[in-house]
Amino acid sequence: MSKLSTNELIEQINTLLNETVGDSSLNTNLEESMRYSLNAGGKRIRPLLVLLTLNVLNEDYNKGLQTALALEMIHTYSLVHDDLPAMDNDDYRRGKLTNHKVYGDWKAILAGDALLTKAFEVVANDQLLKPEVKVKVISRLAHDSGHLGMVGGQTLDMDSEDSSVDLTTLEQIHRAKTGALLQFAILSAADIAEVDENISKALEKFSDNLGLMFQIKDDLLDIYGDEQKLGKKVGSDLENHKSTYVSLLGKKGAEEKLEWHRNAAIEALNPLNTHYDVTPLLDIVELFYNRDH
Amino acid sequence: MSKLSTNELIEQINTLLNETVGDSSLNTNLEESMRYSLNAGGKRIRPLLVLLTLNVLNEDYNKGLQTALALEMIHTYSLVHDDLPAMDNDDYRRGKLTNHKVYGDWKAILAGDALLTKAFEVVANDQLLKPEVKVKVISRLAHDSGHLGMVGGQTLDMDSEDSSVDLTTLEQIHRAKTGALLQFAILSAADIAEVDENISKALEKFSDNLGLMFQIKDDLLDIYGDEQKLGKKVGSDLENHKSTYVSLLGKKGAEEKLEWHRNAAIEALNPLNTHYDVTPLLDIVELFYNRDH
Repeated sequence: MSKLSTNELIEQINTLLNETVGDSSLNTNLEESMRYSLNAGGKRIRPLLVLLTLNVLNEDYNKGLQTALALEMIHTYSLVHDDLPAMDNDDYRRGKLTNHKVYGDWKAILAGDALLTKAFEVVANDQLLKPEVKVKVISRLAHDSGHLGMVGGQTLDMDSEDSSVDLTTLEQIHRAKTGALLQFAILSAADIAEVDENISKALEKFSDNLGLMFQIKDDLLDIYGDEQKLGKKVGSDLENHKSTYVSLLGKKGAEEKLEWHRNAAIEALNPLNTHYDVTPLLDIVELFYNRDH
Repeated sequence: MSKLSTNELIEQINTLLNETVGDSSLNTNLEESMRYSLNAGGKRIRPLLVLLTLNVLNEDYNKGLQTALALEMIHTYSLVHDDLPAMDNDDYRRGKLTNHKVYGDWKAILAGDALLTKAFEVVANDQLLKPEVKVKVISRLAHDSGHLGMVGGQTLDMDSEDSSVDLTTLEQIHRAKTGALLQFAILSAADIAEVDENISKALEKFSDNLGLMFQIKDDLLDIYGDEQKLGKKVGSDLENHKSTYVSLLGKKGAEEKLEWHRNAAIEALNPLNTHYDVTPLLDIVELFYNRDH
């Protein structure tokens, strides 16, 4: 399978995200506000993971495009709702005004609702996947983004604000809040490629470790990162009295845990080695391990 | 096909709604807040319409149960979000405290998000429908509840607050905001029963007229209704300077329009008469026409 250009994929994702929302005949700026947040400069990690995993599994990455768009829509809606005054009350995200600062609170709620809803429409209307695969992807997407996944994790995180939690609860929060959607990216590709059970089990373990790596690195960067590279102030977790891997384990302990999950992720890929070239997935592990923003 | 007991169906819907949300291992009260709103005394018109239409189409109503639950979840989430301070800012609905008054604003936002997400999971996991039918139902549900349907209608309605709109815009609002989900109830049943094109076209016309009847009656009841029977104060539309069928057409004009759509709904059922006993659908037309709450 030929190596995919990450930049070309990102360009394709951005173009499709813009086109997919379209306009409606209702003459409001709801679609404009949906597009505003879709275009607010995300790194597109989740949709890229879908496409790169398909490539590793020797499957045409185009088969994952609509699923990748749906995933990015869900990620985007969660940011729009998280930024609301009733939640984190953030005015800026990645240097741009948040959705509700531009369009107002009620429209931001509705834009989030519409993006979430659109995600399922996009997978249901996919022209390349068989109905049984679409149903599997939709079921997984709803599970991983709903009360048992992302929304549940966000709830537990908000419930835990201003109180310290133990490591078990911290991992619960992150597995649900950020891990579930990262895992969806990898496992939806496994659904689409219709891989054997042992391969999808291996990818489940891989993506679990990848998700935790992502969060441990996040916690480290929030204290020891470079504000210029991050594009945001460091120290917000400390300021908000949030429990993090660093507050619970110290800098060295958090770094050791990051290293542990990196090794576990690499090891989890062993069952794939005989049939697949896993280099792109190993590259992602290193990217998550070394990222500075 | 045997006549279904509406009360027994409602009981079945209520039981299943409670069971379906379940609990999660995350140890928050998110699921409790989801159930709180699901159990807040809705009339279950939408899920009933799914099941009664299936019965009319000589199809086992059990095939529509999960779709009916999904529809009620979406209706419920829309009420939770509409009641928020950033939207209509309502403290009570049907005599009970609204979700955010009990659980707080941020949790109400998340409970709404989780109910919306759960709806798609429920249809995707349906054990009785074929994958291709589930995909059709999910696509229709997302379309009718998203930016081109309910959410779009709510946006246009909020945008139009404190300004008077013409009859064309008023119908656009109602077709999208309330009509789309009522239409979904009827047409998802047509999807599940896999009826011929001419039957689904007839049901499309029928449900469009039924949806408009529902709203015209709502507008009439808001001025001329009995507060005791309605369980809420009348005159809120006047107070909020909202354009309604009554404000645009007067009492007599609105009643004539209600009558017109009633006749159009009945006439739309003509193509069904040769194969199906449409009595339950005619009963619903009369129910919508005569309701006092």
